[in-house]
Amino acid sequence: MTNLQNDTFLRALNREPTDYTPVWMMRQAGRYLPEYRASRKTAGSFLDLCKNPNFATEVTMQPLDRYPLLDASILFSDILTLPDAMGLGLYFEEGEGPKFERTLREEAEIKALQVPDMAKLQYVFDAVAQIRKTINGRVPLIGFSGSPWTLATYMVEGKGGTDFLNTKKMAYARPDLLHHILETNAQTVIQYLNAQIAAGAQAVMIFDSWGGALSHNAYIEFSLNYMQKIVAGLTKNNDGRKVPCTIFTKGGALWLEAQAEVGADCLGLDWAVDISEARERVGDKVALQGNLDPAILLSTPAAIEKEVVSILASYGKGDGHVFNLGHGITQWTPPENAAAMLEAVRKHSQQYHQ
Amino acid sequence: MTNLQNDTFLRALNREPTDYTPVWMMRQAGRYLPEYRASRKTAGSFLDLCKNPNFATEVTMQPLDRYPLLDASILFSDILTLPDAMGLGLYFEEGEGPKFERTLREEAEIKALQVPDMAKLQYVFDAVAQIRKTINGRVPLIGFSGSPWTLATYMVEGKGGTDFLNTKKMAYARPDLLHHILETNAQTVIQYLNAQIAAGAQAVMIFDSWGGALSHNAYIEFSLNYMQKIVAGLTKNNDGRKVPCTIFTKGGALWLEAQAEVGADCLGLDWAVDISEARERVGDKVALQGNLDPAILLSTPAAIEKEVVSILASYGKGDGHVFNLGHGITQWTPPENAAAMLEAVRKHSQQYHQ
Repeated sequence: MTNLQNDTFLRALNREPTDYTPVWMMRQAGRYLPEYRASRKTAGSFLDLCKNPNFATEVTMQPLDRYPLLDASILFSDILTLPDAMGLGLYFEEGEGPKFERTLREEAEIKALQVPDMAKLQYVFDAVAQIRKTINGRVPLIGFSGSPWTLATYMVEGKGGTDFLNTKKMAYARPDLLHHILETNAQTVIQYLNAQIAAGAQAVMIFDSWGGALSHNAYIEFSLNYMQKIVAGLTKNNDGRKVPCTIFTKGGALWLEAQAEVGADCLGLDWAVDISEARERVGDKVALQGNLDPAILLSTPAAIEKEVVSILASYGKGDGHVFNLGHGITQWTPPENAAAMLEAVRKHSQQYHQ
Repeated sequence: MTNLQNDTFLRALNREPTDYTPVWMMRQAGRYLPEYRASRKTAGSFLDLCKNPNFATEVTMQPLDRYPLLDASILFSDILTLPDAMGLGLYFEEGEGPKFERTLREEAEIKALQVPDMAKLQYVFDAVAQIRKTINGRVPLIGFSGSPWTLATYMVEGKGGTDFLNTKKMAYARPDLLHHILETNAQTVIQYLNAQIAAGAQAVMIFDSWGGALSHNAYIEFSLNYMQKIVAGLTKNNDGRKVPCTIFTKGGALWLEAQAEVGADCLGLDWAVDISEARERVGDKVALQGNLDPAILLSTPAAIEKEVVSILASYGKGDGHVFNLGHGITQWTPPENAAAMLEAVRKHSQQYHQ
């Protein structure tokens, strides 16, 4: 393995001293980049792309090549590779979100659900290894998975959504069935992330995109408890070192205290919570990642700088903050505005690390 | 004016003693009721229905006639009557959400925006008066409006949404333009709610359906400040009495402390926050309304009763709680499950009011 030239991101996750606040951008390899759009033209469906390690490597490298101020890279993939490997039939329709051919609502089908053979996901681990080799130690590589609850919403609804009525109906009317899905998902995610770690992922992140749709009690029972199982099941890397883990429940800032107790190294924040309040609530238990509204990148460099300054000042002096967007960068972001954000973070964060 | 036979709801809003926890359901006149679907068959578009005081009265009465345990009624209308009166051209397409023919994005069009002549909304005030007369004092009648921010999102985007990228872009790149829209909306809402009060509304509610999409600072600046203006601009009713006002920011439970300071009598809660925590955070400044996840009504009477018991116990002893769903009742709710919820609230809440 190559020596890491920039470990600022990993140090911040471990709340160790850094010279500045490290930064990366959720979905930084994406449609806002003209080079990404050009690469997409020559390949197939989105799922085909995720299954192609050469393509995944190419587009993972694009933001790193364009933005030298990025402190981390993240595997180009999708959280829905897992339900796809579980046989639910993922497909993408033009102009719409992901859908599944099958949904999990009948008791017999739910009870037949099993942890898939990880060989079906070898393309992911191949991509991790190839990207890691190509990055050649410039910055760390993040692996990731969806959370058991978030994966379950797609598996039960058959698509993304906002209400999750079928999944919630199951949660209240037949919690035993939903727990079976969640337990299967959790065991799957543990194997999946550990294989990414073995392939070279230097940090991992669990995206709980839809945990924020739950009530306080339901969040603990159906989402957070399963993320805790995953964190406890993560293995060390090939060098025998612990790989830092970030959990991110979008819309979940009401529950930061509970999140801080599950053993994760870092909590992701969207933009709803003031980061000084978040820091006060979690104390020194975890690092924090976030929390710029990606919509701000649609405005002007001056407005972007002002918001970056505001978040850095709100976090205040000290380590343990990974700057990021509170959700994926939108496809309408002018690439120069992303650069303005990265420059503002580097320029204004150094004063807080002395 | 008829004497009010059941003032439990109004007393709870004022945090006065009651014998039990009053309850109503957001969107209680709606598609989950077969009698509502039957009434809809004979009329025109949704907007036509809102503009027909006879229809509004008929469907407002339906849940009251079916569920004697309801402690309040709410005007059948839509928050988008205001942008419609402002000339943006509201229409509904089959199977889709509301849309507008025009959007407000150009400076000249934004600066031309004005408070509409309330005569264009006379149908709303006529409906309030007719419903009030028909209810004949059984329970209080609630009037309502959208919040300035929520109305602005529809006016700028031209439709509902989840990202509000055009509105947020304006917020950060041209805040002066967005503030002009918000100020115009606030002055409009003040006139609109005061006319509803003059027509007989006995409580009012401001629905900030999309305030939860904002960052902490942006919420205060672009949403809460304008709701505060409205609360300060409300007039007394024809009997010289103050009309209680509830503000409800869906997804806004992170900001309850700030909401409790704007002069509203009650704060609406969705289901994300534990109501005991919410009560502790707002102290004795306001009453609280909520906070059952409407998805629970899709499960079973036993599961519904368990969740009702949990929320009542979480709020605990004392007054100042109006039980409600944390969002509108879904169209797939079995009407008997709504009855189970209402019965559970009445049965289990009396012990907390002694």
